[in-house]
Amino acid sequence: MATLSPVEIIAKKRDGGALTSDETHAMVAGFHAGTVPDYQMSAFLMAVYMRGMDNAETADLTLAMTQSGRILNHDSIPGFKVDKHSTGGVGDKVSLPLAPLVASFGMVDPMMSGRGLGHTGGTLDKLESIPGFNVDLSTEQFQQVLRDVGCAVIAPTADVAPVDKTIYALRDVTATVASIPLIVGSIMSKKIAEGPQALVLDIKSGSGAFLQEFADGVALAESMIAAGENAGIHTVAMMTSMDEPLGAKVGNWLEIEETVEVLRGGGPPDVVEVVVAQCAQMLLMGGGAPTVAEGAAMARRGLADGSALAKFVAMVEAQGGDARLVSDDEAYTEAHKPRAPFTAEVAAPADGVLVAIDCLEVGLSSVGMGAGRQRVDDVIDMAAGVVFHAKCGDEVAAGASIATLHCGDEALLAAAVERVGKALTVEKDARPLPTLISHLVDKDGIREWAPV
Amino acid sequence: MATLSPVEIIAKKRDGGALTSDETHAMVAGFHAGTVPDYQMSAFLMAVYMRGMDNAETADLTLAMTQSGRILNHDSIPGFKVDKHSTGGVGDKVSLPLAPLVASFGMVDPMMSGRGLGHTGGTLDKLESIPGFNVDLSTEQFQQVLRDVGCAVIAPTADVAPVDKTIYALRDVTATVASIPLIVGSIMSKKIAEGPQALVLDIKSGSGAFLQEFADGVALAESMIAAGENAGIHTVAMMTSMDEPLGAKVGNWLEIEETVEVLRGGGPPDVVEVVVAQCAQMLLMGGGAPTVAEGAAMARRGLADGSALAKFVAMVEAQGGDARLVSDDEAYTEAHKPRAPFTAEVAAPADGVLVAIDCLEVGLSSVGMGAGRQRVDDVIDMAAGVVFHAKCGDEVAAGASIATLHCGDEALLAAAVERVGKALTVEKDARPLPTLISHLVDKDGIREWAPV
Repeated sequence: MATLSPVEIIAKKRDGGALTSDETHAMVAGFHAGTVPDYQMSAFLMAVYMRGMDNAETADLTLAMTQSGRILNHDSIPGFKVDKHSTGGVGDKVSLPLAPLVASFGMVDPMMSGRGLGHTGGTLDKLESIPGFNVDLSTEQFQQVLRDVGCAVIAPTADVAPVDKTIYALRDVTATVASIPLIVGSIMSKKIAEGPQALVLDIKSGSGAFLQEFADGVALAESMIAAGENAGIHTVAMMTSMDEPLGAKVGNWLEIEETVEVLRGGGPPDVVEVVVAQCAQMLLMGGGAPTVAEGAAMARRGLADGSALAKFVAMVEAQGGDARLVSDDEAYTEAHKPRAPFTAEVAAPADGVLVAIDCLEVGLSSVGMGAGRQRVDDVIDMAAGVVFHAKCGDEVAAGASIATLHCGDEALLAAAVERVGKALTVEKDARPLPTLISHLVDKDGIREWAPV
Repeated sequence: MATLSPVEIIAKKRDGGALTSDETHAMVAGFHAGTVPDYQMSAFLMAVYMRGMDNAETADLTLAMTQSGRILNHDSIPGFKVDKHSTGGVGDKVSLPLAPLVASFGMVDPMMSGRGLGHTGGTLDKLESIPGFNVDLSTEQFQQVLRDVGCAVIAPTADVAPVDKTIYALRDVTATVASIPLIVGSIMSKKIAEGPQALVLDIKSGSGAFLQEFADGVALAESMIAAGENAGIHTVAMMTSMDEPLGAKVGNWLEIEETVEVLRGGGPPDVVEVVVAQCAQMLLMGGGAPTVAEGAAMARRGLADGSALAKFVAMVEAQGGDARLVSDDEAYTEAHKPRAPFTAEVAAPADGVLVAIDCLEVGLSSVGMGAGRQRVDDVIDMAAGVVFHAKCGDEVAAGASIATLHCGDEALLAAAVERVGKALTVEKDARPLPTLISHLVDKDGIREWAPV
C-alpha cells in the first residue's frame, strides 16, 4: 500500500487507525525536512494525543525521530555499551553512582540526560552542582571521556534527534505534552541515538511517580521496550516504587553527596539496592556476569572497594568538574561544597511510626526552596534541598527531627517547613511497605524480580 | 472567570470541556489577528473535530467568525431582508427561482452563495452558465442591485467573515473539514454577515444529502438555528428529503432552464413545492402574509403571473448576464444556450416502477461528465448534465428512456450512461415515497410541516 499524504495520515490517526511504519516516518521526516508544516504536525499531535498509538506505532515514531539526526557509533571504543533511563522520582540519583559502577567493570555508559522541571530533579543539574562540571561536550569530547573513563554524562548534542526539539516546542504550545506515545518518542529517540547495545529502564509508580498506577507503568514499560527493541537495542524495564523519596537526600548538591556515600560503600540501603540491581542486570545483558546474583555480588564489591568511586572522580575530572569535592578530601569538601545559609528542622508531630511521606509534596517543597525549576528559565540553588533522618516504617518520637531543610532564603525555608511537615504521616501502627523493585519487564513479558 | 490562554483553551476542548463565549472569541479573534498562530489553531480545530461543540459554543464560534469582518447593513434599502441556505442536494436549484419570487413581494434577498464541489452543484456555477453573469460584485454594486431589483446572488465579498477563509484553508490540510460545528461556523458566519433579518434553512436528509440520517439533519438544524438566533436573526429550518434528484434537470445550464420553467408557472412539482413553501415561510416571517397558507397562495400567483420571472430577468441583467437567454425569446435561447455536442439515453432495464435513483451516483456521474468539480481548480462544462424523464414512483417500460445525458466527451458520456444506469432501480411494485418537506424546526422545537 502506498504511503498516504500528510492530510490522509492525520485523518487516519484522527479516526483511530494504526499507522504503518511508512506513514509515521513520512510525517516525522516530512516535518523535519519542512515539507510537513507545523500546522499539520500540530493537528497530527492532537490526533495522537486523543487516539494514542499502539506499541508498534510508537516504536516507528521513536525510530523516525532518532533518524532525524545522528546515531552515535561507539564501535571504536572497547566494551559493551549500556545505559539506563529512569522515569524520574524524588531523590532518584541512581544514575550518578550507577554509571561509574558500570564503567568499573569495563562496560561503557554513554549517558545523555536531562534537566529537572517540576517536582523531580535532573541528572545534569545535580552534576552541575559540582563547580566546573561541563555537560555540554561535543561528540568527540564525549567519546574521548567514554574511551578514557568508560562513562560520561552530557546533555544531548544538537545532532541527536533534532526533530524532538521542534516537536516538543510544538507540543508545549498545543496542549499535547502529556501523551504517552509522544513522551516515549521523545525519551527513547534520544536514548537510541546514544548508541547503546542495551538499555535498562527504571519505571516508577506510586505517589511520587510520573505515572502513579502500576498498570500504567507497565504499559509505559512495554511501549518503551518496543521502541528500544525496534531499534535493535536489548531493552528491559525494572518496575520500582516511588512512594517515598529514594534515599535520604533531595536536592542537587545533596544528591551528589549521597552519591559519594554510596560510592564509598555506604549510603541509604534503598539507593544501594536499586544501583546494585540495575548494575547486575546490565552485567547480565552485557555478558559480564552469568547470573543477576553474581552481577549483584560484583556490583556490591565495586561499591565497597572504591573502584566505582575512582571512575566517578575520573569522570568529574574529565568533564571539568572540581573532582577534589567528590574524592576523599573531606576537609576540602566541607570547606568548598555548596552550602545553604539557612537550615531548619521538620519535627515529628507525635510518637509513632512514620508511615507515609508525600513524595510530590516533598519534591515541590524542594523546588519551592530553589532546588528545582517551576519554569524552564528558573535559576537553581544548588545547595537547597531536604535531608531525611527517617524513612517510612521507622519509629519516631514526637518533636524529633524527621528532616533538615536547606535553603537560601528564610521565608522560603519557613514555608517549606510547613509544607514538608504536612507531607509526613505519623501513625500508631506501621503500614506494609511497598516492594522497592517488584518486577522485570522485557519483550517477552513481565515477571517478579527476586531481591539480589 | 478570566479567559484562558490559547494553550489552556486548546487543552479544555481537548478534554471535552465546553468553552465560554470569551474563550471561543479569543481563539478566533486571536487567529485572525495573528496572535494565535496557525499551529495552535490547527490543534484547536482537531480538538473541536474530535470533541465537538454544543450549540451555544457553535453559536459563539459563528459570531466570532462573522465579527472578523464586516456585517452588511441594508437599512437604507426598503423591505424585509430575508435569505435561505440549503445544505445541498442533487438538482437543488431552489435558490434560483426563490430569490426573485421573494423579491417580487417587496422583500430583499441579499444572497451570498458558493460554488459546487463534490457531488452537488453550486448556485454561483449555475448562474455563471448564463454568459456574462458576474457573481463578483462589490458591496456597493451588490446593494445597488438589491435596491433596484430586490435580489442579487454573489460570491462572498472579501470583507465577509475573512477568518472563514483562513480557517477553511487550515481545515482542508489538517483533516478537520467534516466537523459539524466548524461547518456551521463556516456557513452561518457568512449568512449572518449578509445582514438578513430572517433566514430559512433547507436541511436535507436522505441518500443524496450531506447528512443522510434525519436525526443528524435535525441536530444540524438546531445548531444552525442557535447560531442564527445568537446573532439576532430569526432562523427556521425546513427538513426536506433528498432521496432522488430534485426536479428533472441536473447540471448548470440545465438547472437554469428548469428555473425558468418554474418561473413561467411550470416546472417539476417537487421544485415548485419547495420554492412555494420556502417563499410562504419567508412571507410569514417578514409579515408579508398572515399565514403560511396565504403566503403559499401568493407564491403560486407570483410564479404564475410572471412577476417572479421579471425579477429574475432583471437580476440577470443587473449582474451583467445575457438576460435574453432567460426571457421569453425561445428562438434566441435555443440558438445561444450552452449545448452539449453529445447526448445519450439511459434506458429502463425492465418493465416496472422506478423505485430508487441513487442521488449520490447521479451527482457523481454529472461531475464525471464535467458538470462539477472533483478538484477546486477544475473547469466546469456548463452544458453537461442529466435530464430525467421519470421520477420515483413512475411506471416505466423496458427500454424507454429514463434520462438523457448531456456531455462534451463521448467516452465520458458512455461511462456516465453505465453509471447512471446502475443508479436506477426498477421493481415490480412501488415503494412508499418519502415526504418532500416533513418538518419545520425553530428555536422552540420541531413540528410537522403541513403541505401548503
